[in-house]
Amino acid sequence: MKHYIGAGNPMHAQFEPKAGYVARHFSWGFDQGVGTITLNRPERKNPLTFESYAELRDLFRALHYATDVKAIVVTGAGGNFCSGGDVHEIIGPLTKMRTPELLEFTRMTGDLVKAIRQCPQPVIGAIDGICAGAGAMIALACDMRYGTPATRTAFLFTRVGLAGADMGACALLPRMIGQGRASELLFTGRAMTAQEGHAWGFFNGLHEDSAALLAAATDVARSLAEGPTFAHGMTKTMLSQEWSMTIEQAIESEAQAQAICMQTQDFTRAYEAFASKQKPVFGGD
Amino acid sequence: MKHYIGAGNPMHAQFEPKAGYVARHFSWGFDQGVGTITLNRPERKNPLTFESYAELRDLFRALHYATDVKAIVVTGAGGNFCSGGDVHEIIGPLTKMRTPELLEFTRMTGDLVKAIRQCPQPVIGAIDGICAGAGAMIALACDMRYGTPATRTAFLFTRVGLAGADMGACALLPRMIGQGRASELLFTGRAMTAQEGHAWGFFNGLHEDSAALLAAATDVARSLAEGPTFAHGMTKTMLSQEWSMTIEQAIESEAQAQAICMQTQDFTRAYEAFASKQKPVFGGD
Amino acid sequence: MKHYIGAGNPMHAQFEPKAGYVARHFSWGFDQGVGTITLNRPERKNPLTFESYAELRDLFRALHYATDVKAIVVTGAGGNFCSGGDVHEIIGPLTKMRTPELLEFTRMTGDLVKAIRQCPQPVIGAIDGICAGAGAMIALACDMRYGTPATRTAFLFTRVGLAGADMGACALLPRMIGQGRASELLFTGRAMTAQEGHAWGFFNGLHEDSAALLAAATDVARSLAEGPTFAHGMTKTMLSQEWSMTIEQAIESEAQAQAICMQTQDFTRAYEAFASKQKPVFGGD
Repeated sequence: MKHYIGAGNPMHAQFEPKAGYVARHFSWGFDQGVGTITLNRPERKNPLTFESYAELRDLFRALHYATDVKAIVVTGAGGNFCSGGDVHEIIGPLTKMRTPELLEFTRMTGDLVKAIRQCPQPVIGAIDGICAGAGAMIALACDMRYGTPATRTAFLFTRVGLAGADMGACALLPRMIGQGRASELLFTGRAMTAQEGHAWGFFNGLHEDSAALLAAATDVARSLAEGPTFAHGMTKTMLSQEWSMTIEQAIESEAQAQAICMQTQDFTRAYEAFASKQKPVFGGD
Repeated sequence: MKHYIGAGNPMHAQFEPKAGYVARHFSWGFDQGVGTITLNRPERKNPLTFESYAELRDLFRALHYATDVKAIVVTGAGGNFCSGGDVHEIIGPLTKMRTPELLEFTRMTGDLVKAIRQCPQPVIGAIDGICAGAGAMIALACDMRYGTPATRTAFLFTRVGLAGADMGACALLPRMIGQGRASELLFTGRAMTAQEGHAWGFFNGLHEDSAALLAAATDVARSLAEGPTFAHGMTKTMLSQEWSMTIEQAIESEAQAQAICMQTQDFTRAYEAFASKQKPVFGGD
Repeated sequence: MKHYIGAGNPMHAQFEPKAGYVARHFSWGFDQGVGTITLNRPERKNPLTFESYAELRDLFRALHYATDVKAIVVTGAGGNFCSGGDVHEIIGPLTKMRTPELLEFTRMTGDLVKAIRQCPQPVIGAIDGICAGAGAMIALACDMRYGTPATRTAFLFTRVGLAGADMGACALLPRMIGQGRASELLFTGRAMTAQEGHAWGFFNGLHEDSAALLAAATDVARSLAEGPTFAHGMTKTMLSQEWSMTIEQAIESEAQAQAICMQTQDFTRAYEAFASKQKPVFGGD
């Protein structure tokens, strides 16, 4: 069963995105448990291509088993986050495809969002400048998002003749900022200012510029990476899982989830640290 | 199959609410693809009656097939939106009805909300002054809502001894403004000020007075009517449809929905306009 | 069937929390239809113990049948709401338990939230000072919440090595303040200030100090207790019940719920009062 053999854990994937990983269509950094993904075609405001979508999807899927990576930062190079699907490399070819190919594409982009939501690591978006189309969807799929006063976020699918229903936008955006505001952004495609995004709960905070933003997002990620990461993974799972449950189902699911977490060493470590008036040192197990 | 024959499309309804339509219990205008519904008993602040409920329901159902109508504005005459179900013409008679008749009534009012949510046209509320009871529910059922500083919105069912659960309020209002604020408004029946409504995401914007409000709402509607209306209809469907799906179901549904939209002429038109640095002219197909 | 016999209503529970009830692990007051629960170990900021959890759960379950109690206020003594599960009396013992016992505990705490959501009385939180852990979950389970500028609310489960998924937090908090803000609070465990809580819709209002807060929350509760309480119970049921319904299911459910309420005396009382230009006097039936 060679292809199940990873770094000490037989459930690891072969492909392990930690220190040694070199991404082909974006850049990847790894430091102190935090993996950083940087979209890096700054001269075109970091558009997505068929290849970068696929590699991002595969990376987030591999993170499911990459136990050394405890938190993720996603950002863009050169003062912009992402301009969305490249007009020449993606939109042009799509206008010539037939149904099965189109569905293969929309499922691939949707699979990227699923993979971001399903990996156990908290994913922190550091989002400056342009954040548009599929880029806005990647931002929306993050667990937390930080911006700068210059961030402009546009779900602009309607501008290219398409529905606002792309990569889960009609499900995710209303839960983030409310049904009425989401409807406006998805029907009109207009840009949401950073100030609106902060007031509406899209951004968890704004920072002065790209450098301060990346530093702050990395601090949050590192702080989470030093925390009870097994429990963080459970928090993330449940935040997605309870989406369409009844209240009663959600409460029973959390009773089970938390009973599992109460058997971790991290729970005991926290109690013992408290009892001896120390700061707990978590191990993620 | 005579009763399926409409204007060129065999799935059209007989009843076609476009230029020639004359409404009996409100007024109807039609210009440049935008239909405007004006509740117009201004001397009583535009209350609803059994007849106006039924005609509104039938109009919105007919809009499902009215392909010439691309967007809808709903407003009220004389500086108020709607005072809700008329006390003398509706509440009095209801106190004398028995269960099957009462259920027939509550299902009819609910059917109006369903029809507003299910027609493919974006529905824009232009809401000044009093917006109360069933009027507040019609406002809530719109895709976007604009007000003035004088708009007062009250889900005042509790004031007449009833539950806040009317026409879908307990499902729609929490998703628009959050569960805690919705609970307060539905339990107490107190009026939400325009400023609260704007801050909480109920209103997408406030305009100076009735005239500016109607002009602005009509501009939004016209702009949407000139856009990719087939895709807008898909956006609207998905914004309702994904309400109670899991994240994974929603993403798969959008992959299918967007693959359909990628086969429209409007998608090709947008790409070609972009490639030639022109503004796209959409056709809704 | 002796154990079904209560005060005049054969469906009443034996245990009736009204004037005569003396709580063992908190204090209970009853006046003009409003029951007030005060967590009262102020020297320790009102922590919860195994016994107080269980008694609170039993109280809210008994309220289901306590028709004399029309509304509930929950508060804390000495300027704090609740510091959560007691470190020595709860967290210590939990670190030594095995799976079935842990699940018994997490189900008991979840049952408290279920009981708060399921009793027909509106539950109003009057929340000053520290509101942490399970205390924050009790606050979140209320129908409305009021605070003071000094209230600090922390879902700090992560600080003790656990998941944010506790007592339904991952389901309830996103619906109250949005998915992004909820994610931040649950992943980081940081305190939400009173001002944030108010701006985000967690608090329905802030009052100057503990005394003004309790007076205002009691006023709201008394006002609701004097209203159409049968209909209030239906509002509460539907606000929970429609959580994971489709829009269409929700509208049909409300058509049925409201048709029931239209047969109450309170609906007729309101109409007759209106017709004679009087203030209605409701009876809750």
